[in-house]
This record gives sequence, C-alpha cells and structure tokens, in this order.
Amino acid sequence: MNQLPEDYLPVLQEAVEKSASSIVITDADGRILYVNPQFTRATGYSREEAIGQNPRILKSGYTPPEKYRELWQTISGGQTWRGEFHNKRKDGSLFWETAVITPVRDANGRITHYLAVKDDVTQSRQTRRELEERNRQLEAVNQILQTIVTTLDLERILQLIADKIHELLKAPAASIWLIDRQTGSLVCRSAAGPYRELLVGRELPPGKGISGQAVARGQTINEPNLQNNPRYARGAENKAGVKMRSALFVPLPTVNGVSGLITLGSPEPERFREEDVVLAEAIAAAAGGAIEQARLHQQLRRQYKTEKEMKTRLAQAEKLAAIGELTAGITHELNNPLTAITLYSQLLERKTGDQKERSILQKIRAQAQRASRIVRRLLDFAR
Amino acid sequence: MNQLPEDYLPVLQEAVEKSASSIVITDADGRILYVNPQFTRATGYSREEAIGQNPRILKSGYTPPEKYRELWQTISGGQTWRGEFHNKRKDGSLFWETAVITPVRDANGRITHYLAVKDDVTQSRQTRRELEERNRQLEAVNQILQTIVTTLDLERILQLIADKIHELLKAPAASIWLIDRQTGSLVCRSAAGPYRELLVGRELPPGKGISGQAVARGQTINEPNLQNNPRYARGAENKAGVKMRSALFVPLPTVNGVSGLITLGSPEPERFREEDVVLAEAIAAAAGGAIEQARLHQQLRRQYKTEKEMKTRLAQAEKLAAIGELTAGITHELNNPLTAITLYSQLLERKTGDQKERSILQKIRAQAQRASRIVRRLLDFAR
Repeated sequence: MNQLPEDYLPVLQEAVEKSASSIVITDADGRILYVNPQFTRATGYSREEAIGQNPRILKSGYTPPEKYRELWQTISGGQTWRGEFHNKRKDGSLFWETAVITPVRDANGRITHYLAVKDDVTQSRQTRRELEERNRQLEAVNQILQTIVTTLDLERILQLIADKIHELLKAPAASIWLIDRQTGSLVCRSAAGPYRELLVGRELPPGKGISGQAVARGQTINEPNLQNNPRYARGAENKAGVKMRSALFVPLPTVNGVSGLITLGSPEPERFREEDVVLAEAIAAAAGGAIEQARLHQQLRRQYKTEKEMKTRLAQAEKLAAIGELTAGITHELNNPLTAITLYSQLLERKTGDQKERSILQKIRAQAQRASRIVRRLLDFAR
Repeated sequence: MNQLPEDYLPVLQEAVEKSASSIVITDADGRILYVNPQFTRATGYSREEAIGQNPRILKSGYTPPEKYRELWQTISGGQTWRGEFHNKRKDGSLFWETAVITPVRDANGRITHYLAVKDDVTQSRQTRRELEERNRQLEAVNQILQTIVTTLDLERILQLIADKIHELLKAPAASIWLIDRQTGSLVCRSAAGPYRELLVGRELPPGKGISGQAVARGQTINEPNLQNNPRYARGAENKAGVKMRSALFVPLPTVNGVSGLITLGSPEPERFREEDVVLAEAIAAAAGGAIEQARLHQQLRRQYKTEKEMKTRLAQAEKLAAIGELTAGITHELNNPLTAITLYSQLLERKTGDQKERSILQKIRAQAQRASRIVRRLLDFAR
C-alpha cells in the first residue's frame, strides 16, 4: 500500500495508542523509542521506564537463545519475523505473547526502525490448556469407570483408583481408606505416590482427624492449609518429613452410607480448586459403587456356598425324615401280632389248670404288653 | 502523549498494517477511508470493497439498536466507546469482536476522523464457553454418580439417567434399553424427551439394528447419518414422523458383559462429537454399575429369603431325622420281649400234650416271628 498522507499521522498515532496489542518501536540498534499504553498494561513497565532500554528487559530465560538469533537474522536481513515469546513482567510474573517484528526502512531503503506488534495470549492459552486438561480428565474418569465397573477384584479396584487419582490431580499423596466394619476405624487400603509405603495399613480410630470429620459429615472437606487445622493428624507427615499444606477429604458414598474416603495431599497451600473437588467426588462415587459391587459379589458367593451346604444337609435330613415317617407307618403294623399274642395267651390261660403253665402264659402276656408300650413310645415320637 | 514527529509516519503505518487488531478509519461522516489487512482477514471484505462504505456493512442484526445509538452518542460527543459486537462476515458467517472506537480531532478541536480498533474474540469466547460447558458436564456427571450409587430402585435409576443424559447432551431422543435375560431381546426400559411414550416398552430382537450391533461388539457406535445406514431400525421414527440423523449407541458395561445400551438420537446430522461420546460412555459405565448393583441387591434379597425358607425346612427335617434315629434305637428294644415270648411259648409247647393247646402256642410263636420280621424291616430302613 502506498504511504498515507501526513494528515493521517494523528489518526495512526491514536490507532497505535488505542491498540489492544503491545506496540514497541526501536531504533536500528534495538533501543526502545516508543511503547504504547498496552505495552505498559502488559509488562508493568511505564513508557518512561521502557524508553532507552532494549526489549530484552522482558527476557525470562524460558525462550531458547536460538529463537533470538533467528529473530535478529530475519529482521536485520529486512524480513518480517513471527513467533511466540515466554516473557517476564516487571513484577517477575511470566506471560506468553505472540509477536510480529518488522524492520522499517527510509526512502533510501536503509533500516531506520524496528517495529514489534505483540499480543498477550497467556489467558487464551491457559483457557485452551484448561479445556484440553478437562477433556483429558473426563477421558480418564471414563476409563476409570469402564475398568472398575467390570472388575470384581477389590484390591485391584482400590489400587487403580489411588494410582489414577494421584496421576489425574497431580497430588503427591493419594490414598483410599475403608471403614473396618468391626471396629469402625478407617484403614488405609491403598495409596499412590512417594508416601505409599507410609500410608498403606495406617489406621485412624472412628471420628479421628479431618478424615473422621469428612466421613461423619458425609461431605468433602477441602482444607487449604492443613497446618492451621487443629484436627490434622500428623502421624504420616512426621514420618515422611514433608509438611503437607492442602488436602482433599472425599467420602465414598454407598447405598448403606459412607464406606470410606479418598484423601489427597499436597505440600502446596490452596492447591485444590472447585473443579478438582468435582473430579475427585465423581471418582469417589464410582469407587463407592465399585467397592459396594465387589462386596455384594463376595456376599453373594458366600451366600451361594451356604445355600449349597444347606442343600446337602437338607437332602440328608430329609432322607432321615422320610425314614422317620415310614417307621411310624410300619410301627403300627406291630400292634396286630402283639394283640394276637395277648389274646392267644389269655385263651390258653383260661383253658389250663396247671399253675406253672399259667405263670408262663402270664409272662408271655407281660412281654407282649412291654412290647406294646415300646410301640406306643415309638408312635408318640413320630407324631 | 505529545504528537510524534513526522518521520514516525511510515513506522506507525507499518504498525497499523501489521496489527493483529482490525483497524478502521472513517471520516467524520462515518465513511470508511482506511482498513488494515487484519480487517480483510477478519471480515472477508477487501480494502477496495470496504473503502467508501459505512461500517454498518458488518451489521448482523444480533447487536441491539440501542448499542449503536449509545455508540454514536459517545463518539460524536468526543468520547471513546468500548464494547462488543456480534457481527457478520462477507460470507454471512457470524463473529464476535470487541471494539474501541475513538474520535480524532484536528488542531482546532474539530472531529475529522473516527478510529476503530477491533479484536475478533469468537475463538477465545468459544473456548471459554466450551470450558464452562465441560465444567458443567463434569458437575452433572458427578451428580448422576452420587445419586445412582446411593439408589437401589432400578426404575428410578433408569429414569434419572435417561433424563440427565437427554438434558446434558441436548439430544431429543434419549433411551435406555436392557437385555431381557430370557429372550436376549433389548427392551426399552426408560426414555426422556418428546419421543418418550413411543420408545418405552419397545423391543428389539437380539442382534437387530445398530443397537444390536453395538451390544454384540461391546463398543460405542457414533452414527453421523442414520438414514444412510441399512441397519437402522425405523420403527419408532415412522411413528414419530421425524427423521433422525445422528445417533449414539453406547453399551452398558458390567462384570458379566454388556447388560444393555443407551441410545441418543438427533434430527441434526453429525451431531455427536468425541467429547459427547466420552461423556455418554462415562454415564453408561456408571449406569451399568448401578444396574448391576440393583440386581445384586435383588438377588441377595432373594437369596436371603431362600436361606430363611431352607432354614425352616431344615429345622423340621432335622427334627424328623432325629426321631428317625431315636426310633432305630428304641426298635432294638423290641427284640427282647419278642425273643422272650418265643422262648416261653417253646417251653410250654414242650410241656403240653394237648394238640389244641400246642396249635395255639404255635400261633403265638408265629405272631412273635411276624413281629420280629417287622422289627427287622424297621431297622433295615433306619440304617
């Protein structure tokens, strides 16, 4: 495009002053001659502080030196350079900016100025990264769910969840505690990260510590600074020799109430955000479900075993019972011969005069009566 | 800031040409005098097309008229206006831009130009919205998990999931189908949205349709255009009188394999993205777990009932069995009197000469033997 007429100068100056991009003009030696207000907003350096300086005041050390070499080669060779910097503000904080850097020549083609137009992309970069991160997290939650829903091995489920939540929330200490049904204590059943060995097997009496509080309330506790919480149980921390600052205590929900909790710890204060809580709670719910499922399967297996044993016992008992009933029927039949014996012996007794014979016949009758009494006892039983 | 010297003109012009913001300069009547290359990239209008036009060529009708009134009042009054537009490109597509619009005055203080510096925020706005949406979805998944993990009522779980997934993925047809264990058919057990009545109770024979395929494979099928898929079962669609285009078929995983599936349908083609699949799969996994849990509880309840019944039967049978055993013991005792009767009758028989007496004694002995045979039978049983 042709050069604009001179009366555009104030308009262009206004455009540059109002620009949402940082604009920096240097001389041919790279000394800053002009910065616009957005430069000051973006970097914290006022116009007065910036003028006379070299743009390298923004160097953070995170942009590789080759990039600067390539930049200078390009622009001193008369070309436009486009790229991205990881720069440092006056207050030391870091930011990302895209830059377009162009040499400007005079009528004789000599480079008189360099111009940089830069845009802070920290925010949009961060939002994009957060979105990617959230997509990754959702993907991970999905994988965890797919796995635990199709697994019955409780130990595997517990270890998987500890590993995944450690990885997903980047918390150095991740552990899962289940309530012991006998004692009501929380027992650490799995953990991940450097403090794994210290945690697994630890026990907390019912209601003890922040864990006990979270379980009793059935609600997540997001503690931004453990060291200020008088309930904090320091057992594991003292052994590890690391001061934990933030922690999440997330109860595991089941149909029968809370069955345990997931804890996450970090040496950074205020580490866990609302999104982390949601993520941890979703995984805790899935874990609660999976633990309950594994338990139900176990119970059902036990139940089937009991049923099988009872069936065997029942079959034996019912065989004996059938015998008992048959016995009763048969026992009845005994009455006929016994009655006959009694009648025949009475008949003979009446006929005979012999005292001795008579006494033997009485004995026969007595024995028949004795047998009848036994039969009556048998029938009484079987009734 | 003071006015820059005239030799800055080419540098400022370069800054405006290189700017990542759209820059538009108009005269005092709002006629476009200049646009920078970014304006062309952002709107699709070339410099030649734009010059002489009014910036209202970008109007989409989505920015309320009061905004334009306020804008003109502000800038014609000599002030800077800042705001956002929902504008339209040359090709008709819509975009969002933030704008800073400033009047520029000459040495006499008369407004000679207006300057607009605008930034396309469509992308960052969309990324931010997607992030908010993803956070909302994760929150919803968490809530679904919390509820179904603590619910045992299968009907409630199925309805809740249909409702939530319908709402979350904005799919007009959402339904849950479970495999009937007897017939192997898929039966629609719950649905949400306008086609609810048409769907609930429908049955698909094993392997039929895209649903049958997803269940057989145990994998999600994301069908971008149903009407091109020869497997598509049109039963419900014909009744609804709406052509469905995209559909998701998501199997419900359980420890014992696939137990059913979630289907989502939309009249838009290519409606479901990778993130929707992940979300639907996570909910399907949770649903699979919850359904399995409800079934296990049901089975366990049945099992407990069976156990109770068996216990009662066992108690009765064992009582009878005990009687059987006692009977055996007592029956033994019968042998003594019977043996005694036999011996006594033999003794008498030897003593007597009377033929008639002898015949009666033989009858007594026969009866005693008959009784003995019965006793032997009893004992044989009880053994």
